Amino acid sequence: MPDVIPDNSVGLVSPETYQFDEPLTLRSGKVLPSYELVVETYGRLNADRSNAILICHALSGDHHAAGYHHEADRKAGWWDECIGPGKPIDTDLFYVVSLNNLGGCAGSTGPRSVNPQTGKIYGPDFPVVTVRDWVNSQVRLADRLGIRKWAAVIGGSLGGMQVLRWAISYPERLGHAIAIATAPKLSAQNIAFNEVARQSITSDPNFHEGRYLEHNTSPKKGLMLARMVGHITYLSENALRSKFGKNTDEQLPGSSNFGRDLKTGKLSFAFNIDFQVESYLHYQGERFSENFDANTYLLMTKALDYFDPSVDYDGDLSKAFAHSHCRFFLMSFSTDWRFPPERSRELVENLLSAGCQVSYLEIDADQGHDAFLLPIPRYMEAFRRYLLRVHEELSA
Amino acid sequence: MPDVIPDNSVGLVSPETYQFDEPLTLRSGKVLPSYELVVETYGRLNADRSNAILICHALSGDHHAAGYHHEADRKAGWWDECIGPGKPIDTDLFYVVSLNNLGGCAGSTGPRSVNPQTGKIYGPDFPVVTVRDWVNSQVRLADRLGIRKWAAVIGGSLGGMQVLRWAISYPERLGHAIAIATAPKLSAQNIAFNEVARQSITSDPNFHEGRYLEHNTSPKKGLMLARMVGHITYLSENALRSKFGKNTDEQLPGSSNFGRDLKTGKLSFAFNIDFQVESYLHYQGERFSENFDANTYLLMTKALDYFDPSVDYDGDLSKAFAHSHCRFFLMSFSTDWRFPPERSRELVENLLSAGCQVSYLEIDADQGHDAFLLPIPRYMEAFRRYLLRVHEELSA
Repeated sequence: MPDVIPDNSVGLVSPETYQFDEPLTLRSGKVLPSYELVVETYGRLNADRSNAILICHALSGDHHAAGYHHEADRKAGWWDECIGPGKPIDTDLFYVVSLNNLGGCAGSTGPRSVNPQTGKIYGPDFPVVTVRDWVNSQVRLADRLGIRKWAAVIGGSLGGMQVLRWAISYPERLGHAIAIATAPKLSAQNIAFNEVARQSITSDPNFHEGRYLEHNTSPKKGLMLARMVGHITYLSENALRSKFGKNTDEQLPGSSNFGRDLKTGKLSFAFNIDFQVESYLHYQGERFSENFDANTYLLMTKALDYFDPSVDYDGDLSKAFAHSHCRFFLMSFSTDWRFPPERSRELVENLLSAGCQVSYLEIDADQGHDAFLLPIPRYMEAFRRYLLRVHEELSA
Repeated sequence: MPDVIPDNSVGLVSPETYQFDEPLTLRSGKVLPSYELVVETYGRLNADRSNAILICHALSGDHHAAGYHHEADRKAGWWDECIGPGKPIDTDLFYVVSLNNLGGCAGSTGPRSVNPQTGKIYGPDFPVVTVRDWVNSQVRLADRLGIRKWAAVIGGSLGGMQVLRWAISYPERLGHAIAIATAPKLSAQNIAFNEVARQSITSDPNFHEGRYLEHNTSPKKGLMLARMVGHITYLSENALRSKFGKNTDEQLPGSSNFGRDLKTGKLSFAFNIDFQVESYLHYQGERFSENFDANTYLLMTKALDYFDPSVDYDGDLSKAFAHSHCRFFLMSFSTDWRFPPERSRELVENLLSAGCQVSYLEIDADQGHDAFLLPIPRYMEAFRRYLLRVHEELSA
């Protein structure tokens, strides 16, 4: 935590755990006999329970979206830029609910949990979960919280896919669907990168077919490689260049090449790190591999690969939204090559064909897919104004 | 070999080995005491030795650029589409020289060779070689073959970097520099992908710090992963989609999603292969890992990372070409995101600033970086016409 909590922070927050004892049948046909969801909430639920917003997290996210867990906590939640008093998702106006999804590794039931039927840790036996399964578990959470209809369901990337699934499967239970930097299904290239990530993990000798915890180890190197691949795809070439390179126009003698001459001023002529972009990726990958669970990473990538709501509608995406009542707000970022603007435009076209109300904003930003996590002024402003209008509707 | 050799094939070819006993000082300061280069030639050298063309290969290429090695050979050389009688690099007109570069694994001195100073296999002790070192070794080959001046030096990708180095370091020794799908230096993203590939290889438990041959093994899994990453970056999203997916416009019911429903018509709900793009990448990666040397892969990626001729010229690329006499012909491909057209345009601008004669063609092609290996009509035709003019100049 910073020395003084900023006025626009939700401050100190504590996660709560909700136990669900009714079995949940998954899309695979497997059944979770019972499960727990870890949840954080920010702001206050109003008297008619109409001001609740659900936040859906992406691949490596969790329930801790805003604020600080304790006094010594240096880092705020993953979407702290967007959630707080006066921020786009304004906690003075809305009651914000954020959970860790099933299969996660931050407290909700997942591969690190004990399987009640065997008394052992699930590990690789945790069933494959899909976006639909998550949304089904989120519906039960809404029921538990007494929220009949979300003012909005909001998410970016894989979180945006959950938003779309809400609009398709539970049209009467949300007022607005806000899906950011997302896609109606992955591209072949996305799937290919995910498969490289999975292969990196499963071919690490410490993976032990997913039973690494039983061996008191972890496939850190494989997870690090998976994260490195992912990280390259989250950032744009522009973002990498502005972090590590010089534009040819601005090149200073000897300072080109992304941090070449790292320390000694010379190339290693060995297979050491020569460029800052390499050490940056190593650092990011290593830090991630210390905290994240490898089996969860596998599950999250499969959930991404499997998402394709058109499959149940003869491949016609617009039919998937035929019964959606909510209003849609989509945003995408110009340099996002993982979920590029054209994928959002594809969504817009299909939503319009389905007769849905949709607002769409394409934001110029240099930061690639990561932009959805960053306080880019035009993004923040549009996001804030849209949700102000949502709030005005509630009060009207 | 096909049952009947096509008329426009160079037919059966045999590599030759040239031994060089004069030590070669490398850019790293290390010295190769002696080395061998494996070479193939196609066509006939004319009386005044003016019709020779040098082919420079890319990351995974070698000397076998055209024709067949033996009757049972089903696959022609890697650039057979471009080299042969009546083809763009017409062997009825030109004498074509193609070599395996130092550090390679197809016969020239490299990590699999015996170090004459120790009597042991080089393995990881083979020195890091740069594009400049390769060109220096190619100059000696030219001397040995009695070729004072190449009619043209030609290469794509990493091969194109060698072409640029020839034009900078040996301006009087080539008439034309033909650089295809290349760049004046790598982007931060390119370097990042290369580092992921290197980490994949070196973290394979069978790598044994590069001494895998001594352990009678090979880091196949790591090399496979490296190739999978590479392969994704060589192909465009369009190429992947047309191989494995359907355009949304053309979607047939149930047939979307890149070969989902691979065999059984169902998703696996496990970490198996679900999509054709995954099995394709596995197949490509595995095939590659059976033939290619992991230490060579490491060397090739470092040669790519280190290439930046502007470094010796205060970061001003145009100064690098100030003494180049040759004419330049550059081509790039619209969907190549590894070496995109803008990198070629950057080269064109710098060549023009340097006062060089340069022709540049940007070709619409769906195949990404791989396009430079494929018989795309507009590409083939432009290539053929340019070299016809080169030949006419020689006869004039």
